[in-house]
Amino acid sequence: MSYNKTASITAETINPKVKIFDYEPCGEIARHAERLEQEMEKSPGSRPFPEITYCNLGNPQALGQRPITFFREVLSLCDNPALLRRDETRMLFSPCAINRARKIIESMPGRNSGAYTNSQGIRSLREAVASGIAARDGFPSRPEDIFLTDGASSAINLSMQILIRSQEDGVLCPLPEYPLYSASIILHGGTMVPYNLSEDGDWGLEIFEVKRCLEEARIAGLTVRAMVIINPGNPTGQVLSITNQEEIVEFCRKEGLVMLADEVYQDNVYVEDRKFHSFKKVARSLGYDENDISIVSFHSVSMGFSGECGRRGGYMEICGFGDDVMGEIRKVASVTLCPNIGGQILTSLAMDPPKLGDGCFENFMAEKEDIRLSLAKRAKTLSSAFSSLEGMTCNKVEGAIYAFPRIHLPAAAIKAAKAEGVSPDMFYACRLLDATGIAVVPGSGFHQVSGRNKATGTCHIRCTILPGEEKIKEMIPRLKEFHESFMNEFRDRS
Amino acid sequence: MSYNKTASITAETINPKVKIFDYEPCGEIARHAERLEQEMEKSPGSRPFPEITYCNLGNPQALGQRPITFFREVLSLCDNPALLRRDETRMLFSPCAINRARKIIESMPGRNSGAYTNSQGIRSLREAVASGIAARDGFPSRPEDIFLTDGASSAINLSMQILIRSQEDGVLCPLPEYPLYSASIILHGGTMVPYNLSEDGDWGLEIFEVKRCLEEARIAGLTVRAMVIINPGNPTGQVLSITNQEEIVEFCRKEGLVMLADEVYQDNVYVEDRKFHSFKKVARSLGYDENDISIVSFHSVSMGFSGECGRRGGYMEICGFGDDVMGEIRKVASVTLCPNIGGQILTSLAMDPPKLGDGCFENFMAEKEDIRLSLAKRAKTLSSAFSSLEGMTCNKVEGAIYAFPRIHLPAAAIKAAKAEGVSPDMFYACRLLDATGIAVVPGSGFHQVSGRNKATGTCHIRCTILPGEEKIKEMIPRLKEFHESFMNEFRDRS
Repeated sequence: MSYNKTASITAETINPKVKIFDYEPCGEIARHAERLEQEMEKSPGSRPFPEITYCNLGNPQALGQRPITFFREVLSLCDNPALLRRDETRMLFSPCAINRARKIIESMPGRNSGAYTNSQGIRSLREAVASGIAARDGFPSRPEDIFLTDGASSAINLSMQILIRSQEDGVLCPLPEYPLYSASIILHGGTMVPYNLSEDGDWGLEIFEVKRCLEEARIAGLTVRAMVIINPGNPTGQVLSITNQEEIVEFCRKEGLVMLADEVYQDNVYVEDRKFHSFKKVARSLGYDENDISIVSFHSVSMGFSGECGRRGGYMEICGFGDDVMGEIRKVASVTLCPNIGGQILTSLAMDPPKLGDGCFENFMAEKEDIRLSLAKRAKTLSSAFSSLEGMTCNKVEGAIYAFPRIHLPAAAIKAAKAEGVSPDMFYACRLLDATGIAVVPGSGFHQVSGRNKATGTCHIRCTILPGEEKIKEMIPRLKEFHESFMNEFRDRS
Repeated sequence: MSYNKTASITAETINPKVKIFDYEPCGEIARHAERLEQEMEKSPGSRPFPEITYCNLGNPQALGQRPITFFREVLSLCDNPALLRRDETRMLFSPCAINRARKIIESMPGRNSGAYTNSQGIRSLREAVASGIAARDGFPSRPEDIFLTDGASSAINLSMQILIRSQEDGVLCPLPEYPLYSASIILHGGTMVPYNLSEDGDWGLEIFEVKRCLEEARIAGLTVRAMVIINPGNPTGQVLSITNQEEIVEFCRKEGLVMLADEVYQDNVYVEDRKFHSFKKVARSLGYDENDISIVSFHSVSMGFSGECGRRGGYMEICGFGDDVMGEIRKVASVTLCPNIGGQILTSLAMDPPKLGDGCFENFMAEKEDIRLSLAKRAKTLSSAFSSLEGMTCNKVEGAIYAFPRIHLPAAAIKAAKAEGVSPDMFYACRLLDATGIAVVPGSGFHQVSGRNKATGTCHIRCTILPGEEKIKEMIPRLKEFHESFMNEFRDRS
């Protein structure tokens, strides 16, 4: 008897968990933009814009951000340690980078940068990360608690894998959310428990709303195990006030929730009146130690001033889990053997950068501040531009790298979207892309219209602030012109 | 009411799937070796050996294997593309490497090596991989079917995630097995269906045995979706004969099983009478195309002559899945955004190395052949040494990087192991480590004693052939001395 592929894989027989999640940042708009780009390559001039402006993905270096010289010099030397024995190297690399690379290579297994490392990452690099955390927070950090990872996303996946036992386990996540969270929770078989951020309260987090969601979930029979907080926010761009953070810590402690603190935008803060504080620092400042509360903090080299997305470097610091749980986490990490070494090195550099007195300190700080100041300027320019448009409101971009304006669409536009079978924000985003080449992500990609908002559904787009200042200046008139003609078209029909 | 961490995470409330798998290559022996090493650092001379010889992990560069110069030069230049604009660079890097790096950088998003790439990997690098596969097999390969990955392990995890829906889904895996497979199947909630390799048949694969296991699994209500084949074998070191491979292809085709072909040791073949053939090539040679059979081939830069384990580079080639399934796989891959760029570059270099006529071709070939010939020599030396010992038999190491000798232990040794509550092979491996500093993995770490062999349980150790030739020469007398005294101790007691 022959089975003839009856058991082989098809769209009907694929793991259904894989089928049910969506992942819009790499979804419909991204595919449409790629199609347009290919079309324009084949027939140049076929569209009324010279190129696609990819504002849909937080991908700084794809949009022209320069990498930090010191980081790349050290990486380059660690890749080719033979350079460390050559005199000519001093003509091409700073002494600072040569010293750091030498120190790193000496601490590696086999004094070589190509061997498997400890599955938590090389100890000396974890020590560098821990010392950077301690300097940032003013509270101690231990290399044993650091897991170097392939970017923050694999750390987040690992956390969900550890926490989620079944569909009865819930994880509180903000709405709008970075969709990695819902995807990861679904893939690991759990249930997302959404709570709404308050757009009217500068995208802050209202504890009574979170409490309401927690209680509803418990009544529905869920065991809620953890709460995700993204600060600074993605896609919302808020930086939480310290009072708000203290409330959240108290809440998680009382309710016995593991805090999953997504702090990957900690170096992206643009306003004077807000500062980044890690949740661990806030908890320690309140007098809580690791017996009181469990906190996992995620960070990466993808954002901040380094913008090294493709290098897949990051870490998680795990505090307040018992030794036996840490042992299990180490075991799961060992299944994929170890995080990539380039990412490990970059993470250590970002957390332990050149210090005052080091030869390359001034150059490093100049590059870093250039990026930060320019991003701050772009954040302001873009949010003002959005706010100036008819029917658009845009909260201040306090941090992270996105503007998340709300659009009050004319009824006729919503009707036209329905007729096309797409959500109104997707309808707007597609029209924008077709007319201007500007790719943004519709708010529904961040599940903005789910939860209790379903009835009143709001409409947003997420637009990165990453194109260079010149490009943004040139983008804004195109955006305005499109928006006006869009509004005219549908206002007239209403 | 306060929940006070009742819902927080403990060893009792962790995801039970995480708890039940074991992962011995990074397990008990590795931890014990690390403890010994720390002890010896504190009190040098406290043990009768100068250092730990890590034969437990396939980690070439940690044991002194030099990286390929061309690979590291290209990586180093891609990390620091500013070098490509400097004249002095020609004093430090070969023109070959400079040309290749320039070509790679030009094909990258933003002409920069730090941006997120397509989640399948950069197209030009996938093209290089596909052309390498086509040249190897003599059959076409398409970049659309290539997923660049963070090593083979993340590719294997992704495949299990796609295939496994519930505990009723089974995956055929060899015993002894590389334990990543059982770990990954358990973590994704499926059931491993083990089939035994035939030690008496040079660790070949007997189709009647696989058929028996498949039928038993079906009778037990499982839907068996795929079959894992590791060729060359880990931990067993066999290279399958082409006749055996043809049988396997016919079997999987008839039974509608996805072939998961672990081909990471394809460049590690040491005997004249065996050659590596990819399963895709075997299937195509039999006249089967992608409508007839689904094959996923895994490869990485960790093994072979490159040995770049810590760089986490690899690929999978997926043939015979429909477009809709490929779309779902792309979506899952996009959740972790993209594979690390360094690993992507290395993978392209390994599959598309310098060619005859390129300036660095001779140096590249010399380095590559040096490694292969030396590994072949070490494979022979080690397997002969094991075979010469009382009560030990060791199949020829035809490929991969391990010897997997069988030990016939005296009854008293088995009794002593029982008294200590460990398996006999673990007992032997611990004694060996304590006496000689040589760390090996007991066969039970590869689940050698499970399945129908439970009653007759065989006893093996896996020992890498990776220490340098000098080190192996020096290791063998220690090994012999230990083994003799071990056998004397327990033979006398019997």
